[in-house]
Amino acid sequence: MKLSEFLTSAEELARRNAPAHPIVMSSRVRLARNLRGTTFPGWAKKPDRIKTCEKIQAAVESLPQMTGAFSQSMDALPALEKQILVERHLVSREHAAKGAGSSFVLSRDETLCVMINEEDHLRMQSLRPGLQLSEAWRAIDEVDSALEKRLDYAFSPELGYLTACPTNLGTGIRVSAMLHLPGLVLAEQVNQIIQAVNKLGLAVRGLYGENTEALGNLFQVSNQMTLGESEAALVEKLGKVVTQIIEQEENSRAVLLEKKPKVVFNHIGRAYGILASAHIISSKEAMNLLSLLRLGIDLGLFPGVPLALVEELFLVTQPAHLQFRFADKLSADERDILRADMIRERLRTVNRPQPPPAAPPLDNPGET
Amino acid sequence: MKLSEFLTSAEELARRNAPAHPIVMSSRVRLARNLRGTTFPGWAKKPDRIKTCEKIQAAVESLPQMTGAFSQSMDALPALEKQILVERHLVSREHAAKGAGSSFVLSRDETLCVMINEEDHLRMQSLRPGLQLSEAWRAIDEVDSALEKRLDYAFSPELGYLTACPTNLGTGIRVSAMLHLPGLVLAEQVNQIIQAVNKLGLAVRGLYGENTEALGNLFQVSNQMTLGESEAALVEKLGKVVTQIIEQEENSRAVLLEKKPKVVFNHIGRAYGILASAHIISSKEAMNLLSLLRLGIDLGLFPGVPLALVEELFLVTQPAHLQFRFADKLSADERDILRADMIRERLRTVNRPQPPPAAPPLDNPGET
Repeated sequence: MKLSEFLTSAEELARRNAPAHPIVMSSRVRLARNLRGTTFPGWAKKPDRIKTCEKIQAAVESLPQMTGAFSQSMDALPALEKQILVERHLVSREHAAKGAGSSFVLSRDETLCVMINEEDHLRMQSLRPGLQLSEAWRAIDEVDSALEKRLDYAFSPELGYLTACPTNLGTGIRVSAMLHLPGLVLAEQVNQIIQAVNKLGLAVRGLYGENTEALGNLFQVSNQMTLGESEAALVEKLGKVVTQIIEQEENSRAVLLEKKPKVVFNHIGRAYGILASAHIISSKEAMNLLSLLRLGIDLGLFPGVPLALVEELFLVTQPAHLQFRFADKLSADERDILRADMIRERLRTVNRPQPPPAAPPLDNPGET
Repeated sequence: MKLSEFLTSAEELARRNAPAHPIVMSSRVRLARNLRGTTFPGWAKKPDRIKTCEKIQAAVESLPQMTGAFSQSMDALPALEKQILVERHLVSREHAAKGAGSSFVLSRDETLCVMINEEDHLRMQSLRPGLQLSEAWRAIDEVDSALEKRLDYAFSPELGYLTACPTNLGTGIRVSAMLHLPGLVLAEQVNQIIQAVNKLGLAVRGLYGENTEALGNLFQVSNQMTLGESEAALVEKLGKVVTQIIEQEENSRAVLLEKKPKVVFNHIGRAYGILASAHIISSKEAMNLLSLLRLGIDLGLFPGVPLALVEELFLVTQPAHLQFRFADKLSADERDILRADMIRERLRTVNRPQPPPAAPPLDNPGET
């Protein structure tokens, strides 16, 4: 079976994820683990990496959670399918660039994914829609416990789990939530929030992790430290901060709607207008405009339009997902045209945002 | 009667003008004349200016063409109504700034307007929709001949009609056409055309005459020289050049549609989308987007939508026309909101531009 046949369709995935939370797009917990007495992937020779990879992959595949899973060596995966995994946040950009000696195992429901021989021997993650940090933690904790019975982890009683990079040492955990913060961006308060979050020892990043732009007003908040606190404490701490950011975002939206409703309607209206009628649109512009459309749906300006529509367009307009739909290799210019065609087509049945109270009737100089 | 009660409504004016020509918005001929033995307005003392003004105004009002005309001293005209005359191209910006001792006479059908004591004692113009240079010339020539029987013009057998500025000496004629050239602008050929037209001794200016921007892709082409050729020859010459520019514009549109249809549809679609859904829009942006909407109507992308709609919006969204509709003095920010409200309201019944052949149906990775 090819990965593209295994993956849930974007439409189905969007339907499944959309009702989860208006502001938190997804919750994720990943654990970094390594095998005792085995060279870290970055230092290991290729034959050793391949051997380790096969050993780990067999262990992961044997887990009950991985019944019906899809696993593949990175060298056997076409570039386009790698990119689709990145766009779905299932593997990292770095892992997508790997070849023989690295692989991944993806659970049937796409909520669990284990990268093998990324920076560490194992990077296992649980990805769930909406605000489900504890649920994501529990799911990956079970995977970890089950694997620990099958594999001999590199563990120090003093330092905890050993990792290739010291920033992951100890628990090896990274807890993160992807937040949609258009209100804070429009109110120009988002940098203030980022600074406050940084002071709490948490990181705020763009859509695709470190050093990436905050496209589509999406921000990923995650823990920086992995040492000195229990996994459960870290999950709880991130959850509290996320709850506070949600409140700030809701507050921003309320203040904007009260103080500058026209500015909000203008942003949303223009975004809708361009999406519904453009014939050429880049991936970045589409994401930024879809973010405003999502805000409009959240604010009730598009009655009857499901959030799933935006979720789906968000996914299918990204370069690899778009390329996948077409047999021929597309240039960036061609993608921009097909992306616009697809968005226009999907918004054909979506009416203009419900305007605020109408302006007085048209009246001209010269009319008596 | 107030000027605002006299003026034709923008809606009626648009209906009257719109079917005239797809590319030529209007044709205009103006003549500069002065009275013999009378100081030019710029050098005359105020009491003399007032005396001259009254004398000329009486002569103009007595013309059969001016039956039912509206005339008023510039000092008696509210600033807002002056600005409305400027937005309708009936008086110059310079004349609108004048006070006592200057006036204007506007014919019942608004096609003839005589400015008294602008730069010259008389600046009489004929303004017609579409490509009607000869008709405009004939109409103003008749006014001029009739006035010459009532007033003693400053005329030199060698130099012709004397004028305050030597650039108007001789015939005192300025023939101009307002052209809508979005095709040449999109194809980035308009500067080339302007240079070619300049070499023929003609001037190309923006919407409101000298030193103004080419807003809304509108360009005014006019003769520079007033000496050494007959009025009829100058009118004919301008007519020939305008015909050539029309051909160039039509050619640009055809080439764009053939070579870059998506670029054209994209510009028109986005313009429509923003106009139909924005809640804040400046006068300049509105004009530039309405220009593209007009292009879309010309190209058949909005079946059933009359050009008059764009003509009307073009006029009523300009600052003074917009201000006129509302009792309270508006700030620029308030105007931008009311302008957007008005445009959205008027485009409510205008459907999205007819798209070119539809994209293939939505199809996602994971669908089998």
